[in-house]
Amino acid sequence: MGSESSPGVLFEAVLASASYLSKQDSLVVFLTRFAMESILRDSRFSCFLDEHSGLVDLHVVEGEISMEDDPLAAVRLKKESSVVVGLRLLKERNIDAFVSAGNTGAIVAAAALILPKMGLDRCCLLASLPTKKDPLAVLDVGGFLDPTPEILLQYARIGAFYQRALLGKETPNVGLMNIGVESKKGTGEVREAYRLLKQEEGGQFHFVGNIEGREAFEGGVDVLVTDGFTGNVLLKVSQGVSSFIFDYLKSEIKEILNDEVHQVIDDLHRHFRYDEHPGAFLCGVEGLVIKCHGAATVRSMVQSILGAKRLVQINIINQIKRNFY
Amino acid sequence: MGSESSPGVLFEAVLASASYLSKQDSLVVFLTRFAMESILRDSRFSCFLDEHSGLVDLHVVEGEISMEDDPLAAVRLKKESSVVVGLRLLKERNIDAFVSAGNTGAIVAAAALILPKMGLDRCCLLASLPTKKDPLAVLDVGGFLDPTPEILLQYARIGAFYQRALLGKETPNVGLMNIGVESKKGTGEVREAYRLLKQEEGGQFHFVGNIEGREAFEGGVDVLVTDGFTGNVLLKVSQGVSSFIFDYLKSEIKEILNDEVHQVIDDLHRHFRYDEHPGAFLCGVEGLVIKCHGAATVRSMVQSILGAKRLVQINIINQIKRNFY
Repeated sequence: MGSESSPGVLFEAVLASASYLSKQDSLVVFLTRFAMESILRDSRFSCFLDEHSGLVDLHVVEGEISMEDDPLAAVRLKKESSVVVGLRLLKERNIDAFVSAGNTGAIVAAAALILPKMGLDRCCLLASLPTKKDPLAVLDVGGFLDPTPEILLQYARIGAFYQRALLGKETPNVGLMNIGVESKKGTGEVREAYRLLKQEEGGQFHFVGNIEGREAFEGGVDVLVTDGFTGNVLLKVSQGVSSFIFDYLKSEIKEILNDEVHQVIDDLHRHFRYDEHPGAFLCGVEGLVIKCHGAATVRSMVQSILGAKRLVQINIINQIKRNFY
Repeated sequence: MGSESSPGVLFEAVLASASYLSKQDSLVVFLTRFAMESILRDSRFSCFLDEHSGLVDLHVVEGEISMEDDPLAAVRLKKESSVVVGLRLLKERNIDAFVSAGNTGAIVAAAALILPKMGLDRCCLLASLPTKKDPLAVLDVGGFLDPTPEILLQYARIGAFYQRALLGKETPNVGLMNIGVESKKGTGEVREAYRLLKQEEGGQFHFVGNIEGREAFEGGVDVLVTDGFTGNVLLKVSQGVSSFIFDYLKSEIKEILNDEVHQVIDDLHRHFRYDEHPGAFLCGVEGLVIKCHGAATVRSMVQSILGAKRLVQINIINQIKRNFY
């Protein structure tokens, strides 16, 4: 509930996920009575539910937090909304992961209120970006806009723990997003973060220094630390440039291409499309939360559901947690 | 002097520019005696100078500001460095434009000290980015990192004046870089800038609201306003993603492509390479200053020299200036 896509679009994702899930899996869908009724009126959905009663569980909630709601106020007032109910069930371990395309601020605020904290003073969002080598974990991509240098250092640690679990690298490479490689570059906060990262270098992570936008995609850096505003811009610009390039290529060279080249271009485009990747991973709480883009497509929700399943399977939360003790 | 590229590389650009310039043009090269001697030892350069004595004028200076120098201190102490001498000659109208690949902070500080102010409390850098339609003027891309909302409003005005002169559009579209389209999104400064831009909308420019990274490349927005940190990241990420994509395409589909497709891919790649565009235009001073990337290539210096010539020809500084009165 509460995303820019209608519950119908998101329910399509439930259908589309089914074929990738096994008998041990269960999908709990949080929705209002009104949304449930509109979905059940569609015979395709109601037939699907009859056939997959063991897989899908409709959980009726009392409301939703919209994109226009003030995050903190909404979380406090709308205690029976899909986000708050879902996170409560996550805390009580009735579900293993929570996936949402709703109001980012509300998800972050509700998670911080409901779930136990883990390693961060402020929650942040981690997104994996394609590079020439391994995927790069960028954090924060929009959870918190004004981090202190100390918080940026915490992002480095948790990003390193995430990549250690995912890539199996004992000492991941951490870079600091900046506008030049020299240590004196950037705002006062960024320069102080540089100093803190340099100080801690060699323990849980290897600090490779300042990273400029161009280098981020070369690979070799495992974790890129930045504030939520810059990280969000970075993420969306990378998506914008790639659609620009691929749209142009497709319109200009459609006729002069053979199928093989089309395939290579399509594969690479998929690599960059946000809806081909799971949403962002919420860092800083003990509970697996995935935030999809607000205008989620069926494809992006399916990827997020399957991405959440993979992270449950490798027990990501416990893997991160044990690094703190 | 003072760039990450050797004077030799930059002097190659002087050679390469010659064929594009006419008898009325004159290139003044600011360099130390040491750099001049090393250039004259290369017979290719010395022959070129003998043949083009009317075109190229070597102006010996007493020093250079390096990338490691503190900008403000260096500008005050090194009064005979290439940047300070060049800007002084620009002020005295001995030259029409000044192009440099040196220390950005020093160029901005020296320009603010030496040249008359024009329209901005703080200087900023404007870069033109390719989009699906007309080029987008992004400012600031690294001149000043902590602008107030009032300064962001000034960027909108001067960006609109620049695009009015270049695109011939009476009321250019101005967007505010943000992490969501809703007016409540972003940091406190960005929300206040939104309010100020909305208030002034319809006069010198049309305010189209918040722009997310993805939309910036769709075209339709003429001016994108942001702080120097975010703008610099935006610029470099767009370059990083495009090299990633083109390098991959070229390595993967080299053998299965015909010449026609290669040509389309090369043309599009050129569209995105930073060294195929003039450097950034310095806003806020009465004087035409172009800042190239610090690791300037021959190609990027040539483009900056020719770009500066085009801007001199349309008399960009006067065109912007007259909007203020």
